[in-house]
Amino acid sequence: MVEFTVYKGSADRKIVQSKTTREIKPDQVLVEVTHSGVCGTDEHHKGKDMVLGHEGAGVVKEIGSAVKTLKEGDSVGWGYQHDACGHCKQCYTAHETLCPNRSMYGNSDLDQGSFATHAVWKEDYLFKIPDSISREFAAPLQCGGATVFNVLHSFAVKPTHHIGVIGIGGLGHLAIQFAAKMGCNVTVFSSTDSKKEEAMRLGATEFVATKNVKELQVSGQIDHLLVCTSFQPDWKQFLPIMAPSSSIYPLTVSPEDFQIPYMPLLMKELKIQGSLVATRAVQNEMLAFAALHQIRPVIEKFPLTTEGIEEAMAKLEKGGMRYRAVLVAQ
Amino acid sequence: MVEFTVYKGSADRKIVQSKTTREIKPDQVLVEVTHSGVCGTDEHHKGKDMVLGHEGAGVVKEIGSAVKTLKEGDSVGWGYQHDACGHCKQCYTAHETLCPNRSMYGNSDLDQGSFATHAVWKEDYLFKIPDSISREFAAPLQCGGATVFNVLHSFAVKPTHHIGVIGIGGLGHLAIQFAAKMGCNVTVFSSTDSKKEEAMRLGATEFVATKNVKELQVSGQIDHLLVCTSFQPDWKQFLPIMAPSSSIYPLTVSPEDFQIPYMPLLMKELKIQGSLVATRAVQNEMLAFAALHQIRPVIEKFPLTTEGIEEAMAKLEKGGMRYRAVLVAQ
Repeated sequence: MVEFTVYKGSADRKIVQSKTTREIKPDQVLVEVTHSGVCGTDEHHKGKDMVLGHEGAGVVKEIGSAVKTLKEGDSVGWGYQHDACGHCKQCYTAHETLCPNRSMYGNSDLDQGSFATHAVWKEDYLFKIPDSISREFAAPLQCGGATVFNVLHSFAVKPTHHIGVIGIGGLGHLAIQFAAKMGCNVTVFSSTDSKKEEAMRLGATEFVATKNVKELQVSGQIDHLLVCTSFQPDWKQFLPIMAPSSSIYPLTVSPEDFQIPYMPLLMKELKIQGSLVATRAVQNEMLAFAALHQIRPVIEKFPLTTEGIEEAMAKLEKGGMRYRAVLVAQ
Repeated sequence: MVEFTVYKGSADRKIVQSKTTREIKPDQVLVEVTHSGVCGTDEHHKGKDMVLGHEGAGVVKEIGSAVKTLKEGDSVGWGYQHDACGHCKQCYTAHETLCPNRSMYGNSDLDQGSFATHAVWKEDYLFKIPDSISREFAAPLQCGGATVFNVLHSFAVKPTHHIGVIGIGGLGHLAIQFAAKMGCNVTVFSSTDSKKEEAMRLGATEFVATKNVKELQVSGQIDHLLVCTSFQPDWKQFLPIMAPSSSIYPLTVSPEDFQIPYMPLLMKELKIQGSLVATRAVQNEMLAFAALHQIRPVIEKFPLTTEGIEEAMAKLEKGGMRYRAVLVAQ
């Protein structure tokens, strides 16, 4: 049995330090957390009595008796998903992220997370971090990176396609880099010009400020549009620049309905594609691609303490993060 | 020059008989209309000063000097599209239905349609009707048949998939037949049991009445859901029965926004796919498949006259059609 420190949400949205005790089962691994990203989804769960954090990076401290691929000292990360049934149609077809009995952040293992000193996870849902990626950068790739890479990798995006990214934040600033390194023409949309220089530096070919603009001017129609804002865009503004047969990926987590003008959907045969993090195979491809192309999140560091978590989440909530907070074990 | 009789909409939504004069250009064909389907889209254009009708079937009466594939006496049909530019990315990739300069019903050639004694169309947008399909049945296939077949043929539907069809009308009653003959498991949703027998006869494997039902009971989750109603469904009712990674095809023509709960879209990676009629290649596949499998619309006949058109459209508007009106030249 191991005991470790964890940081939980609470009904009054304060971070609460606590303890968790876990057994290390034969197929499980004890990880000492060195870094954790802070994602918008953590914000959504802050009012719950559960351990927060799902962009973990750390070092293997102990392995269960049946573990085959990891050893003490390995650098590993984990993301949104912890387990799946292994026996359903989705698992059999390597779509374990869609397993009806999946274990995911917010619905299982509420006693542990990456806002913690340690965590115990199944070997098969931990990902070796390539040597060239330091853990402070590897942490935000586990969910933020995986989420945008999954769209670009799993849904027929080609290097010849024109990609649109709405919003430059934790997701958007990684989407720009991945898409640019895939060879795509990348147009970035942001409300004002304030992040223009950063967007171009990250690999955008074009930057469009959208605030109070009636007709968006772009160099070409968009084949794939990644919505990386924390709110839903004004579709009347974006639909005219979508290419025939193009795709929209709403990555925003929102309690509201998804609402879009109806006829353009038909007349251009648009596709609205839901996308949820990445399968394990895709997660590994993402890490290898990031290593090969030196794709790194732009981070701000905070201590992995009650105060550090509070500070990072407050800044994220106010929209001030440039672009991903990483909590660092003290 | 040829002159023929046409039937137009009008500001006060009365059908008006009129005359059109057309030249037969080298790549064009004069068709004598023998039959025309009546589609919901005609209803949408009834208030406009344009010739109605886009589910035409007839006989070639004269061909232009450059026409290669049709001859006098051939049985031909046509649908929603009349032409495309031939030179854009969509045309070059055989997606001419999405050509930005496409000529389609309602936006071009407003001086002619299938509610007429004749029409003059480009050879390449006329479709030979297989000998085994009589023109009264071929007419509704040109748009209604093409619209549902396109979904089943062009978007990765497999015979092993479970298809849902909401609504048994002009589109739905053909979707059931096509999907069943493709080997799919077909569940039909309709508000009441009144069309159950017909649905099962057409090839459904299961029928579900939806009115006042809180939780829909189905034999298995739906992989592809075709929305063939004239109104948008209650998504809260249908989302729980959608399979992970499944697709929704909203075929309803609606002036309202498309609105759907947001998070299920992400959590199940659902796809909402716009679909618009069929390309020429797909139109020909559809006709061949209908011929091979004896797929026929269920029709009610009306005279192709001002009174006949008024009567058919009134019945369609009231929701009383079983299931497609066909106007027959007198």
